[in-house]
Amino acid sequence: MSTRQTTRRERANAIRALSMDAVQKANSGHPGAPMGMADIAEVLWNDYLSHNPVNPQWINRDRFILSNGHGSMLVYSLLHLSGYDLPISELQNFRQLHSRTPGHPEYGYTPGVETTTGPLGQGLANGVGMAIAEKTLAAQFNRPDHDIIDHFTYVFAGDGCLMEGVSHEVSSLAGTLGLGKLVVFYDDNGISIDGEVQGWFTDDTTKRFESYGWQVLAVDGHDAEQINEAIKSARAETSRPTLIRCKTVIGFGSPGKSGTSGIHGAPLGAEEIEATRKELGWEHAPFEVPEAIQNDWDARERGFQAESSWKERMTRYEEAYPELAVELVRRLKGELPGDFAAKADEVVAKFNAAEESLATRKASQNAIAAFNEVLPELLGGSADLTGSNLTMWSGSQPVSADKADGNYIYYGVREFGMSAIMNGIALHGGFIPYGGTFLIFMEYARNAVRMGALMKQQVINVYTHDSIGQGEDGPTHQPVEQLSNLRTTPNMAVWRPSDAVETAVAWKHALLRSDGPTSLVFSRQGLPHQGRNAEQLQNIERGGYVLEDCEGTPDIIVLATGSEVSIARDAVKTLHQDGVAARLVAMPSVEYFLAQDADYREQVLPAQVRRRLAVEAGAADYWYKFVGLDGDVIGMTTFGESAPGSALMKEFGFTPENIVNRAKALLSNG
Amino acid sequence: MSTRQTTRRERANAIRALSMDAVQKANSGHPGAPMGMADIAEVLWNDYLSHNPVNPQWINRDRFILSNGHGSMLVYSLLHLSGYDLPISELQNFRQLHSRTPGHPEYGYTPGVETTTGPLGQGLANGVGMAIAEKTLAAQFNRPDHDIIDHFTYVFAGDGCLMEGVSHEVSSLAGTLGLGKLVVFYDDNGISIDGEVQGWFTDDTTKRFESYGWQVLAVDGHDAEQINEAIKSARAETSRPTLIRCKTVIGFGSPGKSGTSGIHGAPLGAEEIEATRKELGWEHAPFEVPEAIQNDWDARERGFQAESSWKERMTRYEEAYPELAVELVRRLKGELPGDFAAKADEVVAKFNAAEESLATRKASQNAIAAFNEVLPELLGGSADLTGSNLTMWSGSQPVSADKADGNYIYYGVREFGMSAIMNGIALHGGFIPYGGTFLIFMEYARNAVRMGALMKQQVINVYTHDSIGQGEDGPTHQPVEQLSNLRTTPNMAVWRPSDAVETAVAWKHALLRSDGPTSLVFSRQGLPHQGRNAEQLQNIERGGYVLEDCEGTPDIIVLATGSEVSIARDAVKTLHQDGVAARLVAMPSVEYFLAQDADYREQVLPAQVRRRLAVEAGAADYWYKFVGLDGDVIGMTTFGESAPGSALMKEFGFTPENIVNRAKALLSNG
Repeated sequence: MSTRQTTRRERANAIRALSMDAVQKANSGHPGAPMGMADIAEVLWNDYLSHNPVNPQWINRDRFILSNGHGSMLVYSLLHLSGYDLPISELQNFRQLHSRTPGHPEYGYTPGVETTTGPLGQGLANGVGMAIAEKTLAAQFNRPDHDIIDHFTYVFAGDGCLMEGVSHEVSSLAGTLGLGKLVVFYDDNGISIDGEVQGWFTDDTTKRFESYGWQVLAVDGHDAEQINEAIKSARAETSRPTLIRCKTVIGFGSPGKSGTSGIHGAPLGAEEIEATRKELGWEHAPFEVPEAIQNDWDARERGFQAESSWKERMTRYEEAYPELAVELVRRLKGELPGDFAAKADEVVAKFNAAEESLATRKASQNAIAAFNEVLPELLGGSADLTGSNLTMWSGSQPVSADKADGNYIYYGVREFGMSAIMNGIALHGGFIPYGGTFLIFMEYARNAVRMGALMKQQVINVYTHDSIGQGEDGPTHQPVEQLSNLRTTPNMAVWRPSDAVETAVAWKHALLRSDGPTSLVFSRQGLPHQGRNAEQLQNIERGGYVLEDCEGTPDIIVLATGSEVSIARDAVKTLHQDGVAARLVAMPSVEYFLAQDADYREQVLPAQVRRRLAVEAGAADYWYKFVGLDGDVIGMTTFGESAPGSALMKEFGFTPENIVNRAKALLSNG
Repeated sequence: MSTRQTTRRERANAIRALSMDAVQKANSGHPGAPMGMADIAEVLWNDYLSHNPVNPQWINRDRFILSNGHGSMLVYSLLHLSGYDLPISELQNFRQLHSRTPGHPEYGYTPGVETTTGPLGQGLANGVGMAIAEKTLAAQFNRPDHDIIDHFTYVFAGDGCLMEGVSHEVSSLAGTLGLGKLVVFYDDNGISIDGEVQGWFTDDTTKRFESYGWQVLAVDGHDAEQINEAIKSARAETSRPTLIRCKTVIGFGSPGKSGTSGIHGAPLGAEEIEATRKELGWEHAPFEVPEAIQNDWDARERGFQAESSWKERMTRYEEAYPELAVELVRRLKGELPGDFAAKADEVVAKFNAAEESLATRKASQNAIAAFNEVLPELLGGSADLTGSNLTMWSGSQPVSADKADGNYIYYGVREFGMSAIMNGIALHGGFIPYGGTFLIFMEYARNAVRMGALMKQQVINVYTHDSIGQGEDGPTHQPVEQLSNLRTTPNMAVWRPSDAVETAVAWKHALLRSDGPTSLVFSRQGLPHQGRNAEQLQNIERGGYVLEDCEGTPDIIVLATGSEVSIARDAVKTLHQDGVAARLVAMPSVEYFLAQDADYREQVLPAQVRRRLAVEAGAADYWYKFVGLDGDVIGMTTFGESAPGSALMKEFGFTPENIVNRAKALLSNG
């Protein structure tokens, strides 16, 4: 590092110039944060960050997250300058269609971007998840003299991140779990979009984070030496996470706009850019970085050496612990073990043979226990509803500060934090996270659930108490519109099984689905086993299938999911007795059904059969997609009530009698 | 108070007995918190709470909120014992259908329940909203020697409430706003559902709340004298909110289960109830409260005196400030002023005459400015996006700690907090709150948005940047499934106007809708004015109407909302030129359209016309309800991208050309 030819300020100014030039060219973006945090980034990236620009996937790299994601030009500048595959042409194409430099950092679009950020506070939460993953993976796999998993997680965060509630949830948990290798840099610039934060944000942030059990340091964010010392102290503190409060000037370098909200989210304008160039002593053309500065930023050689040295350690580890090494590599690749398929078949067959009537949450617990036998990468948890979600099994061991080699996280009453942490765990690699809460409280976590889908991460949401069927807790606890919300979320797979057998199939596919999240929606109440022939059993995984049929073309098709399947099956049997040619289609997963070929879909739901009745104890609107203008839906159009679940199912029309009546009404209409 | 015949412990034990008996009888519920907090409640309710059981609507009553709403038997016991219209038969009917004692306290079901709680943390947030409303209303209406609005807001909260992120958002803001009349009792019992919280919740809560600028006191929650002294100190502190940490034993009195999670959410069982009766020295039959205890709890006489004394003050106020008094009474009744209708007509006519092409968020700002001329009860705000949401107008004055008589709240980056606070403001009375954020960040606030609908509160959500049309910020900031989510929420009214004129109508109806929340969904980008004849102009308020028509029965109906209306109108004109009988239906509000009579709906969407094409830059699925199995939808089925908005509208098919092509394809299909 002593060989560098340029000053720290010159190197930081390269970030400032690239950021203001790109925002100006795009006529859109946020120059304030990159210009304000450039000095911090310069020290961290040039003197500490262990990464390999040529291999952004190196598993033991330090993780770097820009939680204040609107400052995306900071990370694009850093990636470009340090030698990632992000040429200057991409920076010139900032915020344009199909560029690698979207408005906010998007995971999967840009090499080196560790997570998608922009929705504030969640980058910090992802960082907590990555630090948990690192600590737990290290505890599971490291051996004396073999610290094969051993990296830091660095997060940049702004005022907005710290105002958001999720920052409380995850920082509190990070303190409890003693995440000593998590280092957060707080861009304490006193400015948010509405102006000087003193009007709405007066926390003593040092005191706040100390209350969580963090080490808190304070520095001048434009003083490289102070930053350097703080990073040293942060790395030296192994049992507590560290927050470094960096007093900065937003838009540092802009004589006319720095220190104001005017530079937060708008281009500087040609004139102010000119003045800023002068102020910074940056005499180069837009997007031009002098070779000496570029060379001093280039981290490829250092990165190659870092990874090479780790590979040597890995080789020694493989020699010492061949089985562990094979298992670690498998898990890091995200490959299921060779015996997974057999285990999955066994679980489904076993559940089918048992013919048990169980709440699907209980069947889920049985599935978790069974799959854990072959999948040590399962990292479970619940937002303080373990006994209700039934996410724990006999082999569950809590992850704690002192004993991190567990497989279960007590997330506390922190649904949003849990979901965002699970995204971070999945992004890190080495685990398949699953976490439980009541389906209604998916809403507390809602945007993190969406982010998991946007980033195509394998996160398994266990949502129990899935309808008014949950009973006495009443409308605050009874989902109505939440199922539709999950189903209309792009990339989200949703299963609402009708019994233990469908539950096993749902779990199997959640585990197989490595390119996106799955929401498993389970009943609180017991549900009867559904008898199936071999073909029906096989067809569960197609998402929708004929469970009860009539001779010839049906007059009416009844569609049902979850707890309504058995009720609808009784109704269809009554219709048969009454001479009505009725078919029952069970639809545990709409997404999987819609992914089937047209022939299969036509077989199940023939286009000519227009009298269709959907039955689901969730928002009715969604089902018109399947029943059209000639069909009907027995669903929810109001909130629920507080009463025993069976009373509510009756009150809201989820009975065989009502299904029969509505079916007949449909048949008599024209 | 010195006249009471019974001991504090006896009175508190009445709560304990009623709570365990009701939970036992219902075989469902949460006895732990009521039994643990009974001593605190006894001191607060008997010695401090100013309320009138005979008139739960008395405006200057102290507000009492049970944020840990699962402990509902605590509040039902208190209401019953102190003389509200809640007979013992209702307590015996706990958690049964149509009882006044639902599983969680539900606003509107039970006299004296101030807000619906259960979703943790939000009761605390509602309390912050009520305390803001009290402070601001007092600042607007009180005059020297006339403290006509002058009450406390008391909140009970548990570990779960304090773990939730929303507690951070609202407690931080409460500190900044110096809410001296907010007093929160923290049930510090060390237990949550998963067990002893030390495994997942190790905050130094005193330090945490001090970091927010609160006064924090600590007491033994079973020592009445300590509780008493703490309440005194809390009431004496006028410039800071107070948190009273009450060390309690969950399920106090139960020899076998107190202090464990086993008593949190399950009946004690007959045997343990027997043992508890013995332990407490409570020798009375289930649901039986000795007369002396009942008498000592009875607050009707005190309440009558308290309200009478206030009424005398109100009379003096009316004499001194007759106009102010009339205005205060109007606002407390939630009545719009007499000149509202004329103003609304004027605004709509003016916007129509202006024929301006504006972003609807800008039109919304103009509407806000216009309506503020007659509605001083509007209390605006934004979650740190004031300049983007355009929620501020020239008459906006911030509410601050020292100057509370404003009409605008800088909520900071706290969407969830904002929404839950708005619910509290609406529940308090005297204001119509409106608050802005990007539509996508409705998700951060999601469950509070739902709670506003569940409680039928007049809260106006201003959601801007309503689609991929927002452009460069990319998929993290572009709503897809959020519109459907709002529309499938029971009791929620949603408007997505196509131009300034529809925006004015939307605002008018949001202001008229006193029995539920409205979500106003606005574009970031400019939208052209739509020409309308008088009938069309009139029909906007019917939610859906024919904006462009053909001769005779249409071959095809195109439905569109918001920014897609002008694009669809161009397409329909092209179809006309090509000889296709096409109709354009603008649908700014699905809910208002569906509330029209069948004749009108049939006029707009004749049942016989089955070729229907819906066009909306939101999740496609929702629209099948209107287009059925023979129609088509141009909508979103994936996440968006980062690029200029116009490029994205083209990329995703929201162009006249694509609409024409898809319409023709539909026509040629059979």
